[in-house]
Amino acid sequence: MSKSLADLIETRFGLPTTTGRDRPAAGELAGSLEHRTHRRFAETPVAEETVELILACAFSAPTKSDLQQASVVLVDEPETRRRIAALIPSMPWIATAPVFMVVCGDSRRIRRICELRGRPFANDHMDAFLNAASDAAMVLQNAIRAAEAIGLGCCPISHVRNDIKTVSEILTLPRYVFPLAGLCIGHPAQPAYVSMRLPLHVTVHRNRYDDSAFVNELEAYDRRRDRRYSIPAEKQRLVERYGHAEFYGWSEDKARQVSVNERDSLRRFLEDQGFNLS
Amino acid sequence: MSKSLADLIETRFGLPTTTGRDRPAAGELAGSLEHRTHRRFAETPVAEETVELILACAFSAPTKSDLQQASVVLVDEPETRRRIAALIPSMPWIATAPVFMVVCGDSRRIRRICELRGRPFANDHMDAFLNAASDAAMVLQNAIRAAEAIGLGCCPISHVRNDIKTVSEILTLPRYVFPLAGLCIGHPAQPAYVSMRLPLHVTVHRNRYDDSAFVNELEAYDRRRDRRYSIPAEKQRLVERYGHAEFYGWSEDKARQVSVNERDSLRRFLEDQGFNLS
Repeated sequence: MSKSLADLIETRFGLPTTTGRDRPAAGELAGSLEHRTHRRFAETPVAEETVELILACAFSAPTKSDLQQASVVLVDEPETRRRIAALIPSMPWIATAPVFMVVCGDSRRIRRICELRGRPFANDHMDAFLNAASDAAMVLQNAIRAAEAIGLGCCPISHVRNDIKTVSEILTLPRYVFPLAGLCIGHPAQPAYVSMRLPLHVTVHRNRYDDSAFVNELEAYDRRRDRRYSIPAEKQRLVERYGHAEFYGWSEDKARQVSVNERDSLRRFLEDQGFNLS
Repeated sequence: MSKSLADLIETRFGLPTTTGRDRPAAGELAGSLEHRTHRRFAETPVAEETVELILACAFSAPTKSDLQQASVVLVDEPETRRRIAALIPSMPWIATAPVFMVVCGDSRRIRRICELRGRPFANDHMDAFLNAASDAAMVLQNAIRAAEAIGLGCCPISHVRNDIKTVSEILTLPRYVFPLAGLCIGHPAQPAYVSMRLPLHVTVHRNRYDDSAFVNELEAYDRRRDRRYSIPAEKQRLVERYGHAEFYGWSEDKARQVSVNERDSLRRFLEDQGFNLS
């Protein structure tokens, strides 16, 4: 029997479901449910036309008030790529992926338009930053969907924000523009796995936010993930600080990960770029 | 002759292209290129299973470091819906759309996990907010793509942030959770148009951000948009302040729009929700 969307939903969330059982596992919904992150790419180049097609889809995303506050910097000069990759040695795929781009929030364009048209820009506050950030995130998501629909694999790189000032200098990002994430694209060199998500009854609420059952749900989710893929002992984080856990699930892994500070310079960077975040 | 993706790209950007001319206008790429916003919906309900399918696709979006920092509140109680719709009288589709949900950034879950696992949360800063916001934006974008793939129409409502405190109280959003946008979904009641975007040579840069040609490009874009759809004189904004423009293009419209302050309370709201935005 051929697969249904319900099968894909079961893989995604690790729980049985009847949702989608009458729909074949094909088309855009299947593509979305089967999303996976690829970090190893074949050397086969991605045609310039394909990149353009991905970008055309990416910029077809909705944009807050039609303000179009996203920009992309395609990085195809070897030296520019090398300089960015050198900042993030833990992710060698930045150097080797056939395509690498940086998706940016762009509040510069609308401010220039105000100047050109002689109107005051009266929205220099936190919400302006959030609008540019979410426009950029939607462009990023659309780029990923388009690339996957073409049969390519992607890896978004929020790590470009770990050294946000240097990355921005390399790309000569002007005031009011900031990098949200990098994006590697290429032909997958090996299969990748579907990352199991928290069940929808944890992430989706009805009428009122209610996470009173979260502790039990989390326990069950950790066990479910572990049954499919158990994090090997040598991959436990920060054992010198926290020791070896007998059961090391998703939540233990994530708690350890965020117990180390990173990227605490974003606000300063954004203010240096001109943003008023009051 | 049947349509190609190149035809859809021409409609989206208003410029001729050879990109995609050998690919039929079908499938996910076509869906993405043909995205349009719908605000009028038929009364036909959307099946519960369809909503679940959309949400399963939505939450299949990539998430920064697998932290899963998005939540959705589905609003199906008539009274709850009415209260939110009453805050935004200019958008009656919030009350009438068969489905309405609010997509939230959620930094609460990871902080609870840290407490449960006895690890310090060492990332209480602006970047934590941005990660939750961009996770939520990607879930929103995926929900829109999924709904459109099913043949439904969508309208994202960032306007829920204009009265963010009240909306959050209605949905009982706890500390570290904030609404990014509402989303109306339903069967389109009438055709909608494809919104023309700035050309990719304006929004996409190579290796270095360079908008030195922007002024001329903007002029040409305003004219191109106007040739397809001329904003009627009675739709000019703020004529009491700025008068009637003889040529009223996109950039004049957007400059007038952002010359009025809105949503300057986001930072205060986020801080009240517990976020440290330093």
